Amino acid sequence: MNPQWDIIGSEGFKFMGKMNASISHEIKNVLAIINENAGLLEDFMLMVEKGVPLDSERLKKLADKIQSQIQRADRIVKNMNTFAHSVDKTKGNVELGELLSFMTVLSQRLAAMKELTFSVVPPPDPITITTHPF
Amino acid sequence: MNPQWDIIGSEGFKFMGKMNASISHEIKNVLAIINENAGLLEDFMLMVEKGVPLDSERLKKLADKIQSQIQRADRIVKNMNTFAHSVDKTKGNVELGELLSFMTVLSQRLAAMKELTFSVVPPPDPITITTHPF
Repeated sequence: MNPQWDIIGSEGFKFMGKMNASISHEIKNVLAIINENAGLLEDFMLMVEKGVPLDSERLKKLADKIQSQIQRADRIVKNMNTFAHSVDKTKGNVELGELLSFMTVLSQRLAAMKELTFSVVPPPDPITITTHPF
Repeated sequence: MNPQWDIIGSEGFKFMGKMNASISHEIKNVLAIINENAGLLEDFMLMVEKGVPLDSERLKKLADKIQSQIQRADRIVKNMNTFAHSVDKTKGNVELGELLSFMTVLSQRLAAMKELTFSVVPPPDPITITTHPF
């Protein structure tokens, strides 16, 4: 029997749910922007079909926007994946500076909604402990 | 003290990690396809700049592809959000047929990787219990 679970069980689940819900909202926002740009692309095509000359500069900007949003989404999904894999392990070596920086990134959206910003000063030397990171 | 946490604590965290990791891989796959299409769009633009006439039919197909992938991503993110919010609640009314269907959708990718498919026959009448769904 591991008495820790009585303390971290319920709160831990709530925490994970909250973080993952926040990540899903972030991804949703990115998808909405990509969708908007794909919609604009279709509008462009309709205009071209009606004989309006193609503005290739605007179309290029549109492709750039989609790609930069994909990069943003990739970063979010990478963090989501790191977070997911950090809880499917039971115990491991954790460097506290790294964990703190990672938590700051994960919490950014929730903090921004309360008009807060975090900044992390990692310890000069790595501090590694063996624990369950979340 | 709630002795259940000793049983579900560690396994529950692993389960959540595994499901969220799987969701993140699904989203990553969708993003990769969108990115590929955005790359093709840029290639088109380069060709147009070099004087190749624009194939508006192909460009329209490309926009369609991006939008259908966005819809796919939206569905995944919606499930992710439902999953996240179902664990940040402690207890609630759960309809077992609904929960089973939802779990089937969530597990599809992991099952497909093992060449398995699930099909759910929900109970004819709703069966509602009060529990912690995950």
